[in-house]
Amino acid sequence: MAGSRFSYVKNYEIADPLLPGTFILARVDGRAFHRFSTEHEFTKPNDERALNLMNCAARGVMTEFNDIILAFGESDEFRHRSFFASTSLYNRRMSKILTALTSIFTSMYMFHWAEHFPQKALKYPPSFDGRIILYPSEQEVRDYFAWRQVDTHINNLYNTAFWALVQQGAHSTADAHAVLRGTLSGQKHELLFSRFGINYNALPARLRKGTLLVRENVTPAPSLDTASSKKKIKRTTMIVAYHCDVVGEEFWKGHSELLNP
Amino acid sequence: MAGSRFSYVKNYEIADPLLPGTFILARVDGRAFHRFSTEHEFTKPNDERALNLMNCAARGVMTEFNDIILAFGESDEFRHRSFFASTSLYNRRMSKILTALTSIFTSMYMFHWAEHFPQKALKYPPSFDGRIILYPSEQEVRDYFAWRQVDTHINNLYNTAFWALVQQGAHSTADAHAVLRGTLSGQKHELLFSRFGINYNALPARLRKGTLLVRENVTPAPSLDTASSKKKIKRTTMIVAYHCDVVGEEFWKGHSELLNP
Amino acid sequence: MAGSRFSYVKNYEIADPLLPGTFILARVDGRAFHRFSTEHEFTKPNDERALNLMNCAARGVMTEFNDIILAFGESDEFRHRSFFASTSLYNRRMSKILTALTSIFTSMYMFHWAEHFPQKALKYPPSFDGRIILYPSEQEVRDYFAWRQVDTHINNLYNTAFWALVQQGAHSTADAHAVLRGTLSGQKHELLFSRFGINYNALPARLRKGTLLVRENVTPAPSLDTASSKKKIKRTTMIVAYHCDVVGEEFWKGHSELLNP
Amino acid sequence: MAGSRFSYVKNYEIADPLLPGTFILARVDGRAFHRFSTEHEFTKPNDERALNLMNCAARGVMTEFNDIILAFGESDEFRHRSFFASTSLYNRRMSKILTALTSIFTSMYMFHWAEHFPQKALKYPPSFDGRIILYPSEQEVRDYFAWRQVDTHINNLYNTAFWALVQQGAHSTADAHAVLRGTLSGQKHELLFSRFGINYNALPARLRKGTLLVRENVTPAPSLDTASSKKKIKRTTMIVAYHCDVVGEEFWKGHSELLNP
Repeated sequence: MAGSRFSYVKNYEIADPLLPGTFILARVDGRAFHRFSTEHEFTKPNDERALNLMNCAARGVMTEFNDIILAFGESDEFRHRSFFASTSLYNRRMSKILTALTSIFTSMYMFHWAEHFPQKALKYPPSFDGRIILYPSEQEVRDYFAWRQVDTHINNLYNTAFWALVQQGAHSTADAHAVLRGTLSGQKHELLFSRFGINYNALPARLRKGTLLVRENVTPAPSLDTASSKKKIKRTTMIVAYHCDVVGEEFWKGHSELLNP
Repeated sequence: MAGSRFSYVKNYEIADPLLPGTFILARVDGRAFHRFSTEHEFTKPNDERALNLMNCAARGVMTEFNDIILAFGESDEFRHRSFFASTSLYNRRMSKILTALTSIFTSMYMFHWAEHFPQKALKYPPSFDGRIILYPSEQEVRDYFAWRQVDTHINNLYNTAFWALVQQGAHSTADAHAVLRGTLSGQKHELLFSRFGINYNALPARLRKGTLLVRENVTPAPSLDTASSKKKIKRTTMIVAYHCDVVGEEFWKGHSELLNP
Repeated sequence: MAGSRFSYVKNYEIADPLLPGTFILARVDGRAFHRFSTEHEFTKPNDERALNLMNCAARGVMTEFNDIILAFGESDEFRHRSFFASTSLYNRRMSKILTALTSIFTSMYMFHWAEHFPQKALKYPPSFDGRIILYPSEQEVRDYFAWRQVDTHINNLYNTAFWALVQQGAHSTADAHAVLRGTLSGQKHELLFSRFGINYNALPARLRKGTLLVRENVTPAPSLDTASSKKKIKRTTMIVAYHCDVVGEEFWKGHSELLNP
Repeated sequence: MAGSRFSYVKNYEIADPLLPGTFILARVDGRAFHRFSTEHEFTKPNDERALNLMNCAARGVMTEFNDIILAFGESDEFRHRSFFASTSLYNRRMSKILTALTSIFTSMYMFHWAEHFPQKALKYPPSFDGRIILYPSEQEVRDYFAWRQVDTHINNLYNTAFWALVQQGAHSTADAHAVLRGTLSGQKHELLFSRFGINYNALPARLRKGTLLVRENVTPAPSLDTASSKKKIKRTTMIVAYHCDVVGEEFWKGHSELLNP
């Protein structure tokens, strides 16, 4: 870096470390994906290809950053995916972590586009924005994921009913919104079943509960080679997808190591 | 957004507004582009295609964000490009501005890859990181760009001499570094000329001085249609590339509106 | 500092530097001074002793911190005094500057209490809170002081009319507020003059315009001692009080060195 | 507040909320107390009056802010006192909490000076600076207090030996430092005992372990008045001083409610 008389401007870059000891939650949201999904003709209420692509991008980010141990994708083809990590990555510099993660998510999404949409070229580049939020304790992290899953459920139930009214019921979109306004959860279930024969609870869990990507430890098979048994066994991990409930205790009990690294 | 008992976690997202009245400088750097440029066989010391692609991505970002009025790309196919803006974009929320900009840069880079590297598929997705720095006054902004241009010059002179030694002089890379260690600028000029017949100052300005993208106002042609002359004339801008000196006065005098918006 | 296994907790103290190149404005406000002024029987609408004590405390802070070049005290015995400084004090660490300044203000106020209220012992300790605000340019700093002076005028006019109604007009406080509700500036002038014979503009400027403390350079008298004339002349300053207008140009033209240090 | 054309400057005041869910630790340090303690002739190594005054000021702060539940004063008449609180005070605005606390500490110190130093007028006003540090979990808070207590012990042992050498051993201060340089804890104990007959462990615990002020709940006596027994019993607290060990488990087990509010 040049030691010229101009280099004083470097001092205006102020350090932005994240508070030590806190859990880091990063969310990445599609920018203007309403338009993006329309222009690229995503199917409604859920486009399986788009959901898979989001999960694929999230997996790519987790592969790049080993410290991310959990990612949650809502069953929505453009709403935010949430990552969680406990990390000393980049000395916890906020901008560095956040922009690298958002950029990798973006490039993974584009890189894998053609696999998931083989018939459809990108008309223009999609983009995302991101945000880091800190949580001091395990309880808040669990509640964060519970919050997103409850929200996923509410949105997906609404969208399922909405698009049934539009696509099968021949309602206008304005009309469909009017029909659903103020309805309770049970009434939407009933409407789906009675008018369209849809048993909401029988829909795939990945749509109702979102997708959780979990980094899990892999126990290496015991080696028969006595020489190598003295070597340090390298701890390896794999990323496993779940579509299970995270509001209750069960998932967390089965993954108690996640929040106690 | 769900009003569940979990939604309290939303309050942990702390506002991050940028100080009003300051100029915003955003830099975007390629992550691990040493490897990326090797794997994708960029020519050395400068790969014209890669430089053009960087400028193309920067232009894409400027098209998306009208408040960016200046961008500087070093003559380096992966070093940072610097943007400058005076803006009320997103209420000056730091993370929002920074991540959107970094993500758009990333996606523009990938979207336009094939145009610039038609024979070469991307082996893996490139990524970038970013940072925002605030400058209170015009002087500091000018000095920032001067700093980057001086640095561009120093790096490009070094790289030009280094790769001449390696490619034309058949030195090993270690050897080439050893030859150049401690040499002054004049000695590198001399070495390039005497040993390789290269007149450094005759190299294209875009390599020696980098590329400046400037948003300039376009004066609309007067309309002959009297009816439309009463309409509000929409101010339009275009993005113009320069490879000129920004250390001295001339560029800034000719663009005095840039820092006094 | 102990290098025990507990000393890791020190790392949670995150640096808080103020952006370089910006002007630092610190305000200090009395906490719960409505009660404090009542319990210590300050005269209304202005207690000269209390105003002098505030100015005295401000002067004490300026004496301690040479980098403070301007201080503004509203003509209100407990509202905030505003300080202004351009400084590299404490490496511009925010908490350090702000707390030292607030603490010194507090202790100066108490230390000099007896001089200004010789007949009245402190019933309980007064306290203050503080805040630092950054301004990028001279214009904003001038506008800040203009803002406070306009506010001082508005408050003092209201208070003067209010207490005239209560003290001389025998109105209840609720009544006095009701009389003044919605009145324009001219109407308050008129009320003061017609009912109480008070020409507001003839009141002391320090009440209508507040008090400005300005650090001014002192030109040392030329020395007759030829030996010492070769010594470096130490630049000295003195703190001068003004009760002049800071909304217009005049004050700033006469003190152009203040904002261009 | 005046709605003048200058009031835009108010927008430069950027919110500074502390991360929710974290424990707030505030430390207050005497500024330049080496000089202050010399000018006011504090006895060495510990001035009981000065220690009591510090504790008195800390108690005053705790009385003002009910959310402070713990304060630690090192056995040093000017080193920092540390406060701890879990609070929603002032909406967790950092500057507000920190400056109010530092100011109250300052004014309490001055207000109660004469009680503790009846023969000695303040020569000039003392001042303090402060800092807030956030801790995400109970463990870090416990480790913080342990850290300070270990440090208190180390400093006090050194100071006790140092001043014994100076006051009783007639060493110069430079000499005394030289004697102690590099000595281990056990060697200082031995030196104190063999040369000066001082059994360090028999010194008052408040000097060796510092002073802990703890807010404890007071169980109100049952009322005989049946009418009032239906009223809501107001929870009251009192502030209790301890000079006990906080490195081990015992104190924290006996006060488990402190960190689980």
